[in-house]
Amino acid sequence: MPASRHRKPGQIVHSDAPFNAEPRLDRLRAAYLTERADFYVRSHGDIPDLEAAGYRLTVVGAVATPLDLSLSDLIRRFPPRSITATMQCAGNRRADLNRLRPVSGDPWAPGAIGNARWDGIGLGDVLRAAGVDESAALHVAFECHDEIDQDGERFRFGASIELKKALSAETLLATHMNGEPLAAEHGKPLRVVVPGFAGVRSPKWLASITVQDRPSDNPMQADDYKLFPPHLDKDSADPADGVTIEAMPLNAAICEPAEGATLKAGPCVMRGYAVACDRAIRRVDVSADGGATWRQAELSSDDASPFAWTFWEIDTTLSPGRHELVVRAWDAAGQTQPADPEDVWNFKGYLASSWHRVNVTVV
Amino acid sequence: MPASRHRKPGQIVHSDAPFNAEPRLDRLRAAYLTERADFYVRSHGDIPDLEAAGYRLTVVGAVATPLDLSLSDLIRRFPPRSITATMQCAGNRRADLNRLRPVSGDPWAPGAIGNARWDGIGLGDVLRAAGVDESAALHVAFECHDEIDQDGERFRFGASIELKKALSAETLLATHMNGEPLAAEHGKPLRVVVPGFAGVRSPKWLASITVQDRPSDNPMQADDYKLFPPHLDKDSADPADGVTIEAMPLNAAICEPAEGATLKAGPCVMRGYAVACDRAIRRVDVSADGGATWRQAELSSDDASPFAWTFWEIDTTLSPGRHELVVRAWDAAGQTQPADPEDVWNFKGYLASSWHRVNVTVV
Repeated sequence: MPASRHRKPGQIVHSDAPFNAEPRLDRLRAAYLTERADFYVRSHGDIPDLEAAGYRLTVVGAVATPLDLSLSDLIRRFPPRSITATMQCAGNRRADLNRLRPVSGDPWAPGAIGNARWDGIGLGDVLRAAGVDESAALHVAFECHDEIDQDGERFRFGASIELKKALSAETLLATHMNGEPLAAEHGKPLRVVVPGFAGVRSPKWLASITVQDRPSDNPMQADDYKLFPPHLDKDSADPADGVTIEAMPLNAAICEPAEGATLKAGPCVMRGYAVACDRAIRRVDVSADGGATWRQAELSSDDASPFAWTFWEIDTTLSPGRHELVVRAWDAAGQTQPADPEDVWNFKGYLASSWHRVNVTVV
Repeated sequence: MPASRHRKPGQIVHSDAPFNAEPRLDRLRAAYLTERADFYVRSHGDIPDLEAAGYRLTVVGAVATPLDLSLSDLIRRFPPRSITATMQCAGNRRADLNRLRPVSGDPWAPGAIGNARWDGIGLGDVLRAAGVDESAALHVAFECHDEIDQDGERFRFGASIELKKALSAETLLATHMNGEPLAAEHGKPLRVVVPGFAGVRSPKWLASITVQDRPSDNPMQADDYKLFPPHLDKDSADPADGVTIEAMPLNAAICEPAEGATLKAGPCVMRGYAVACDRAIRRVDVSADGGATWRQAELSSDDASPFAWTFWEIDTTLSPGRHELVVRAWDAAGQTQPADPEDVWNFKGYLASSWHRVNVTVV
């Protein structure tokens, strides 16, 4: 299917093949549950167009009872589960690191994130039905239908998570997003949803699940999506030096006003999001003077959804001149963000979670 | 009991009444399970000397079956539980904030922390035996035997935690610390241990537990131990502006060499700790040049104890001159620490969790 078919009006498209796109930030901030048209798309290969009819999922490996089930089997056999959770790319806000020193990968703005209600079945329910040993130190590897061309190799997308997270109540095999069947670009007809983890651990177009004693050896798991120390680069980094990216750190962004905006002097409403994996956001500080002074924003969140983002908003007044607007968040563990991109820089450009800064001109 | 009775050789004593003391950092780093002589003591009032015989604990409030039990009743009735967990004061490392601009409270170095094996019974088991409604949005308030003089008032120490944390498997009523009955200064004969939370939520010398629909109104809960924004001070801060300190943020410290040390040029072993509430420490970066360049330390931790600290160690070589040694940690969510004390400064001096810096002279 041509990637152009997945383009939405107003999207920022980083590449067509694979198709990678994010929304404008004012669109992103417009709805607590992100609409399909505004939900970022991160693909590593093609975008399969699979029909529900004919779809099958296999569960194999270290299980007592391997499974081979159709989508209707899955839905009939396992109780429905749903969760509202934020999904984000490990490369969200990479552009901030890229401006400091070049990094690899698409230069995502803070829009490689979205929040949705996911409906489906529990991955844990499926694994228990397959007779997995719940107390074992195992890994749950996913193989998918999308095919990736990388470094002269062609392979199907794969990734894995630890069994403990796979068995947790929040981890789903989702068929629906915000009440509608998954769109092709979001993994139709079945994807994994691993709340709190980087999007790469929530594979789309799921084909098979293998329970095994080690992480997936797919390049997406074994080589990519690792956090490296700041002195390493493409040539010097060994995957063994990196930390596998799973849960995502505390982050926040200003969605309005936009970077580079020219505004009229006077009242200005600033709006954005904050997110902290499974922790509540307790405070959001906003500065209109580059971080010299701070005020606290109003927060709105869904208390029933610990993995969902928090929206924040604050009324401010801007005088003529140039202003550097800044946001930083604090989570329920009293944790706050590093100030400077330098403090989190890594050559792959992952986990860009320093204070978000937006420069505006007020006339 | 005179506070002098609790003094240990080599301790840094911040005050005698209440008795507040921390160990030298090389002593702290000497053992993964902190010995009693090296375990910080934070008191808010007197140090009661209660005997196990005659001790009683009451459980009242929103429970179906109020309890009034002796220590032997408790031990006989409930199964033994134990956990290895780090305890730390919300003011640990406050001295770093104090150096920037004065804050209130004792100027703790990074020694207001310790790690112990705690044995006792499960607080959740006791609450369930009292018939608490496990799904209700309730609070568990503790009242204790120690008496505090503050602002012309005299009151018994009290604090509270949310029911969900009280029911968690990790939260104990402890009778033993590292295999020995609790010492008087650590809460003999029974204290609460709330892993991951600031020490103030793990009251010593427990007298009664009240399940209620709101947090404790004790000044320790209602007024103190709140995290305020940086622009507020003693006169301008309303407790409603503060966030109640519960879980503690990611932190790390250099224990060896010591601040101000004069060292011989050549090989130098740096050692310290890192801690991240319930998250694993994934990486510790160490710098010998003020943070310009970083190397990764060797980590040692107890995988079976997610609430326990991680020890780190690195061999380095120091040339003659002055060096600023720095440490920063990264947790399993890719979270790292803010660089500067300015970024976490608050007038009460809580949660000092910026990069720890130690200045040494090499000759």
